[in-house]
Amino acid sequence: MKLASLRNGRPDGQLAVLSSDSSRYVSATRIAPTLQAALDDWDAHKPALANLAAQLDAGAIAGQSFDPELALAPLPRAYQWIDGAGYLSHLERVRTLKGSKDKELQSTRPLLYQGGSDSLSAPTDPIRVTDPDLAIDFEAEVAVIIGRVPMGATREQASAAIRLVTICNDVSLRRLVVDDLQNGFGFFHAKPSTSFAPIVATPESLDTAWRDDRLHLPLRVEVNGTLYGQPNAGTDMHFDFADLIVEAARTRNLGCGTIIGGGTISNQHDESLPIKADGIGFACIAEARTVEKLKYGRARTPFLKPGDAVRIRAVDALGRSVFGDIDQKVALV
Amino acid sequence: MKLASLRNGRPDGQLAVLSSDSSRYVSATRIAPTLQAALDDWDAHKPALANLAAQLDAGAIAGQSFDPELALAPLPRAYQWIDGAGYLSHLERVRTLKGSKDKELQSTRPLLYQGGSDSLSAPTDPIRVTDPDLAIDFEAEVAVIIGRVPMGATREQASAAIRLVTICNDVSLRRLVVDDLQNGFGFFHAKPSTSFAPIVATPESLDTAWRDDRLHLPLRVEVNGTLYGQPNAGTDMHFDFADLIVEAARTRNLGCGTIIGGGTISNQHDESLPIKADGIGFACIAEARTVEKLKYGRARTPFLKPGDAVRIRAVDALGRSVFGDIDQKVALV
Repeated sequence: MKLASLRNGRPDGQLAVLSSDSSRYVSATRIAPTLQAALDDWDAHKPALANLAAQLDAGAIAGQSFDPELALAPLPRAYQWIDGAGYLSHLERVRTLKGSKDKELQSTRPLLYQGGSDSLSAPTDPIRVTDPDLAIDFEAEVAVIIGRVPMGATREQASAAIRLVTICNDVSLRRLVVDDLQNGFGFFHAKPSTSFAPIVATPESLDTAWRDDRLHLPLRVEVNGTLYGQPNAGTDMHFDFADLIVEAARTRNLGCGTIIGGGTISNQHDESLPIKADGIGFACIAEARTVEKLKYGRARTPFLKPGDAVRIRAVDALGRSVFGDIDQKVALV
Repeated sequence: MKLASLRNGRPDGQLAVLSSDSSRYVSATRIAPTLQAALDDWDAHKPALANLAAQLDAGAIAGQSFDPELALAPLPRAYQWIDGAGYLSHLERVRTLKGSKDKELQSTRPLLYQGGSDSLSAPTDPIRVTDPDLAIDFEAEVAVIIGRVPMGATREQASAAIRLVTICNDVSLRRLVVDDLQNGFGFFHAKPSTSFAPIVATPESLDTAWRDDRLHLPLRVEVNGTLYGQPNAGTDMHFDFADLIVEAARTRNLGCGTIIGGGTISNQHDESLPIKADGIGFACIAEARTVEKLKYGRARTPFLKPGDAVRIRAVDALGRSVFGDIDQKVALV
């Protein structure tokens, strides 16, 4: 089952059910007005939503043509957005850039940060910045939306709480990362609104692409139409989503509708940009620049500037965009 | 005008209006079902809520007796909780404990951290911990709830966006602070659910106690019935709430219903515990311990343990608890 939150002039949008091929939608507001409302009573609402989806797929309901421009982020404002660091090679590649302390990489417990969740960007919204010179970067990630998880949860409880899967762009202002981390209070100014794909899917609807608490699909990233990377999100994910949820729930309950990011997808390889058509590449600019510094003595790939376009999508074996595209341009406010 | 969110078995509770003396309440759900819903259309709903409050004060509506046990946190789950560091003497006293880098105190721009806002504790809920040995501390703070603030907002815009004022207990697990900050990703495990007083008040209803974007009232803190401190929240607040909001909005919009904390209240003095009846004392244990280390060579005051009770309230000139009491016991889950 696939769901989306459509623009209706209200902060949370309105809930819609999509056809399996994402081509059509029907409003689901008679079941639950918003995605958060559906999640709050998931066991009660999920069968009704699944029934609506089945009717749409069978043609019993015609529905309307789905255009990603109609969509807000699935949760345009959420009660929690936690980003984990599931891929160790991302940490290895960007650690020096981030001004972090020179200490051993944590490979036994995942790093997490508490992100802002009050204004999550629609897939086609601009990336708005106040200054063109902040070293604007994207980070292509998988994200899950969970039900309530109790403090001290087990891996089994964590895994069972995963309700929906999607992808996101954790926009980063690299020039502000060092200041944020040197302050000692963690990311703040360096992490403006994260953007989300238009569609969320239940794990079971992803079939074998969702297994071992990981999404086994490549995320294809293009900047101004040029391929940057297509790392597979299921490869080299050292900490899976159950690990990330368990770690997040160590000292607190996690509320229903919490979004957990898996961290910037990063596969181990020694390529640099430009990559070949079958290359792996990168899911953020910072990693490409680190590799270039090591290889050529200096970074060649520029950060984003106003007017630049970033497109991110998860592609299945037939090349279809599973959650719809994140397709954004950078804009000065 | 005073408002509260009352328990009704739902995650957001139901909106109630209180009498000016906080003794009685009436349901406000015919105006807005929840406090967030009221904030989302504040300009439309505020006059109707104020009218209901006036009827309650005039006796035109009898209302029901208000018991803080009825109350959830004003926003039991919020889209954003940002805690600032308005009081430099708090930073000075606890900086070494927190494992932060030995660098100059930031007195030109306030520090902020992004807190978890998915599960904010009711004023009489237990402080739940999984381990008695985590150096459990309280932090008494003033907090404001704001309307939407645009990226790059001015002090005037920030000040005008302050909708409601209350107090909170930013519970801290000191033993985990060092790990969190050494990781470089900021507070996470060290900051479980923050607790809030039962009542929020509009700035104008606080009369002269709210001025210069600060709350000019002492917060009285007791542990197991013994006075720990009664620092005045309007004294030594180097960064006021307008400063904190401006800083929070540097690179992002702030959504409607964002809660901003002013940081642990801290007045400059050289007292140590126990304080006299007219002493100032402390709004967290960590500060008392730092002063003791300097004075006696070792910390004497223990952190909280299961069974300990913490009571925090803002008191007016007549000794009344303006926002109702935060009154919690520590409990092992």
